[in-house]
Amino acid sequence: MATRVSTVAILGLGLIGGSLARALKANAFCERVIGYGHRAPSLEKGVALGVIDSFTLDLDEVIESADILVICTPTLIAEQVLEQILPRIAGRQDAPVVTDAASVKGNLESAARRICDGRYPANFVLGHPIAGSEQSGVAASKADLYVNHRVIITPVAENDAAALDLVRDMWAATGAEVVDMSVAQHDAVLAATSHLPHVLAYSLVDALAQSDASDEIFRCAAGGFRDFTRIASSDPVMWRDIAIANKGALLDSIDLFSEHLASLRAAVEAQDSDGMHATFTRAKAARDEFAAILAERQGDKAES
Amino acid sequence: MATRVSTVAILGLGLIGGSLARALKANAFCERVIGYGHRAPSLEKGVALGVIDSFTLDLDEVIESADILVICTPTLIAEQVLEQILPRIAGRQDAPVVTDAASVKGNLESAARRICDGRYPANFVLGHPIAGSEQSGVAASKADLYVNHRVIITPVAENDAAALDLVRDMWAATGAEVVDMSVAQHDAVLAATSHLPHVLAYSLVDALAQSDASDEIFRCAAGGFRDFTRIASSDPVMWRDIAIANKGALLDSIDLFSEHLASLRAAVEAQDSDGMHATFTRAKAARDEFAAILAERQGDKAES
Repeated sequence: MATRVSTVAILGLGLIGGSLARALKANAFCERVIGYGHRAPSLEKGVALGVIDSFTLDLDEVIESADILVICTPTLIAEQVLEQILPRIAGRQDAPVVTDAASVKGNLESAARRICDGRYPANFVLGHPIAGSEQSGVAASKADLYVNHRVIITPVAENDAAALDLVRDMWAATGAEVVDMSVAQHDAVLAATSHLPHVLAYSLVDALAQSDASDEIFRCAAGGFRDFTRIASSDPVMWRDIAIANKGALLDSIDLFSEHLASLRAAVEAQDSDGMHATFTRAKAARDEFAAILAERQGDKAES
Repeated sequence: MATRVSTVAILGLGLIGGSLARALKANAFCERVIGYGHRAPSLEKGVALGVIDSFTLDLDEVIESADILVICTPTLIAEQVLEQILPRIAGRQDAPVVTDAASVKGNLESAARRICDGRYPANFVLGHPIAGSEQSGVAASKADLYVNHRVIITPVAENDAAALDLVRDMWAATGAEVVDMSVAQHDAVLAATSHLPHVLAYSLVDALAQSDASDEIFRCAAGGFRDFTRIASSDPVMWRDIAIANKGALLDSIDLFSEHLASLRAAVEAQDSDGMHATFTRAKAARDEFAAILAERQGDKAES
């Protein structure tokens, strides 16, 4: 039997927040979902689409009426939202649980400590659903976005156990697989699997677009290049903000990658047939295993 | 009305050669397609599947009976095949046209000059169909593999105009779009759009697989990572050989990319918000335009 609360508030109603709202309503985790933001139009659309039950532009009203506040804004905006919320609930016994869905956790942990003068608020739980879409906006939200996707919770020492459990239960209710990780490990893992690949794809496409032969290059590129560069079609503002928020781990990832690329470059230059074959074979084995696990987890059709 | 010849010979009957055979028969470009190779099993399968009409293991018989020989072997094997064919047809007026489908052109041009003591054979036409699949082997071949795909012909000064036209006509008969390019430009463009992305994908996956956190990394990776690394599941032998055959252009591509990555790294380190935003925005615009053109050309469903 899932935990059930009265009211969940979504702060920032886009794809991520809208899909969470839909999933929580579909699975009867709460009696109602309210929206909050600075501007009415997307919230009005959310009500019209049945994604949320009501909305307000008044943060104090949200804090009074909700059991859980979920910050679903872009990464850097989440810091600003924390600056408004945390002082309002500091020291209150009846304060709601606050959590977030941003892509980087270290910057928000630091922001929370800074805002609260070093005393991390026990009921602020850092979380990150590993799900998304090339589409954005509340109209693209869907109730099954999180089904069989991972949600990473990054507890800190000061966290209240009940607050952590409530957030875990909330995500479990969406059909997600909830796992714990340290803040540092989360940011390193996401840098490696997501932030670095975006940087590489953006860098490659920009390098080719600026070359003298760019017309011929893009005219001759085919399906492999399309898949490899798909993430370079992502939102530049979102990825600029993630690169700012996760600077340290991203730089570490870029450096690790650059060392490996330099080794492979040396093998190409030396025509080191065995060295190249060993690298490509190890990589293929790791990638095939990853793809098989992902396909099984997501029920996707298996890749050949 | 398409050119029509009596016999086309496929040397190396896999996905590429098998698909060419099927397309030429389906479009009645020739009266018959024969297969040639060192081993009977794939050739017997080709006959059983109706991909080719007959086969032989005797190269002299192929040269006597075919109007066009198409070398469809892996990249480095193509050099060895040229060493067997070119001495047999040197100076013969009735020699068949010889062409190939390998991924790199510069090494084959050099090989042809070396084999023929500096006199490039006028009826050897360098070509490269930009098509493929993650599947391989004659059983995966299909008649429409080349439809709306590009085939690049790289004429050299010594080429006979009629030989060039015959090879262009052959590929046009498969539904491909045939374009000319210089050998150097072909190898540079393919390095940029195909060989470099494979090196980057292999390098990334191998770097992550060797990291201490590799289990967590691959467990948390999602769809974006799957698409980005799909080409790291490609055949290691094929890509080792391409890296050997196209060493010069590949090294240039790696260096161009590394310079751009270093610039972007500097922007991340400096938290240069405007610089990152400008790079990501330029890349997104170029990638969106590329994807739209590719979707229109291939009749794929448009990407959002």
